[in-house]
Amino acid sequence: MRHNFGAGPCILPQEVFKQASSAVLDFKDGLSILEISHRSPEFEAVVEETVRLVKELLNVPSGYSVLLLQGGASLQFSMVPMNLLPEGKSAAYLDSGVWASKAIKEVKYFGKANVVASSKDSNYTFIPKDFEIPADSAYFHYTSNNTIYGTELFDLPATKVPVVCDMSSDIMSRVIDVSKYDLIYAGAQKNIGPAGLTVVIVKDEILGKTDRAIPSMLDYKSHVDGGSMYNTPPVFSIYTAMLNLRWLKSKGGIAEIEKENIAKAKALYTEIDRNSLFKGTCAVEDRSRMNICFVMEDPELEKPFAKYADENGFEGLKGHRSVGGFRASMYNALPITSVHALIDLMQSFEEKYKK
Amino acid sequence: MRHNFGAGPCILPQEVFKQASSAVLDFKDGLSILEISHRSPEFEAVVEETVRLVKELLNVPSGYSVLLLQGGASLQFSMVPMNLLPEGKSAAYLDSGVWASKAIKEVKYFGKANVVASSKDSNYTFIPKDFEIPADSAYFHYTSNNTIYGTELFDLPATKVPVVCDMSSDIMSRVIDVSKYDLIYAGAQKNIGPAGLTVVIVKDEILGKTDRAIPSMLDYKSHVDGGSMYNTPPVFSIYTAMLNLRWLKSKGGIAEIEKENIAKAKALYTEIDRNSLFKGTCAVEDRSRMNICFVMEDPELEKPFAKYADENGFEGLKGHRSVGGFRASMYNALPITSVHALIDLMQSFEEKYKK
Repeated sequence: MRHNFGAGPCILPQEVFKQASSAVLDFKDGLSILEISHRSPEFEAVVEETVRLVKELLNVPSGYSVLLLQGGASLQFSMVPMNLLPEGKSAAYLDSGVWASKAIKEVKYFGKANVVASSKDSNYTFIPKDFEIPADSAYFHYTSNNTIYGTELFDLPATKVPVVCDMSSDIMSRVIDVSKYDLIYAGAQKNIGPAGLTVVIVKDEILGKTDRAIPSMLDYKSHVDGGSMYNTPPVFSIYTAMLNLRWLKSKGGIAEIEKENIAKAKALYTEIDRNSLFKGTCAVEDRSRMNICFVMEDPELEKPFAKYADENGFEGLKGHRSVGGFRASMYNALPITSVHALIDLMQSFEEKYKK
Repeated sequence: MRHNFGAGPCILPQEVFKQASSAVLDFKDGLSILEISHRSPEFEAVVEETVRLVKELLNVPSGYSVLLLQGGASLQFSMVPMNLLPEGKSAAYLDSGVWASKAIKEVKYFGKANVVASSKDSNYTFIPKDFEIPADSAYFHYTSNNTIYGTELFDLPATKVPVVCDMSSDIMSRVIDVSKYDLIYAGAQKNIGPAGLTVVIVKDEILGKTDRAIPSMLDYKSHVDGGSMYNTPPVFSIYTAMLNLRWLKSKGGIAEIEKENIAKAKALYTEIDRNSLFKGTCAVEDRSRMNICFVMEDPELEKPFAKYADENGFEGLKGHRSVGGFRASMYNALPITSVHALIDLMQSFEEKYKK
């Protein structure tokens, strides 16, 4: 039995793997999902259902389009200012981690990023809270969950300017009010599906207002008009995302999975705080439910614990090099039994090594 | 038994489907290929082998980088001029089909496209041959195979300017001399692998010369420097491409598959020319080996033949709406037995319907 705590691409439900595996052999009439036309009625139905499930699960209001794109969040770092930032204008960015700072770096090709606050000097161990978003900002951009540092921003900062959010690592993990956002984007490879797909949820009325000439593939309008089929889409990634969203719906949807995610995070944080050998790395009030970062009180014990975890079937627990120590990523598909197994591991390790 | 003549995403070898299906369940230690980290040694080995196989199969000289990207050929339509066309300069484009003309449309955001020749007025039934490429062109761009119209340009036009080629639908189907090209790009979903992956082969020394500030994800240099891991790559599409390229190598490589492709194309064209009910749609000297377009002498017979083909397990034979009639796409993985089956079908149809 493996416990996959990897940060992404990450664990998906076993039944999704089974269904996806089966469709690679036979999706329809003996044809593989890999060899069917993206213009076939069967695949058009897959795109339609995937979009419908995103809308249904997140309760997306009318007036928004759901786009299934390629290029990851990293391409969105450019597409967002290209599509939303008029020449000479400024957009407000919250610098809460490496991915936020990468998004900020891409703005300069199109206009100015006004960094309203940053926790970089503290190695991003907390999410900055006291900041002003200038009313003349073209938009406000933030990252809702910082995968590397294990911080999460649960409450959308109050602002009247359009809000853009990189939700790559916590989308579909908790209930959000989409109507408060103008554009949400997410690489699929955490709670949506396999790598190779990017989901964008965009309020239609914010598009087409910059007067900038935008190459077709980088213009959200091309993809809105093309129904995410402007060109050949990433067929298998979309199909598997559909399977995963079906699974999420069958579990009772996001409100139900959020309860589980809260329970999973609470259990592990409780153990980190209780166990004499471990400690958390970031501000308690900003602790992420998705990525739980912790280190050893005695750094000498890190290698032995890593080895012990490895020997016991735990995968992907190594912390990012910017933080060190360990990171337990606990996306929707990670069963609570894996969390309990990790807690047991930490306790038995404590038994061996406590002073 | 299905015969998949679809234009793409298209048939891949059955053993590739089997291996890919199996890796979705268990790629390594019980973990799915969909849940492993793209930074794991196991997946880094996949990227490395995929790049090595592309280089080996196409005999890519040193001084070139092989990039595994996202966004399809359509994103390359923008990335090519963005990276290679200096402000105010002009690039020469050959307009030999709808995809070539789409590539031309994206140049205007970066400079000027000089269309050196076009067969648009003849509905792209041939490839223009008499044209001059101005010596001061930043580069010359052409499409080697026109999927929709069934024409293929086998010999690179003579020119001293850098050559860029969209080889989406005939790459890996025949031996080419990569050293004559400065940049080759191809959506994977014909002879490379599943949709969601784009392969770019670029001569390193042509990069970084435009003085244009290029957003990171759209800059080839980011991907060269990042070893195609600038951000999370399309893991499953790359893995499956690797399996498919292994298969191609095991078949004896491109020189061997080219012989088969010549035999397959010759057999079907011979039947089209012989059979009293069918006729080809494009200039004989420009006939593609990959996409073979044909119509009925009597248009009234199109529906009955389509129905007959469908009843007999033939998939994807419908011609593109711009040409009508039928299109048999015969990529590397399509067995010659399927071609013979199609010929038999055409002959038995002729028996029934000939006057």
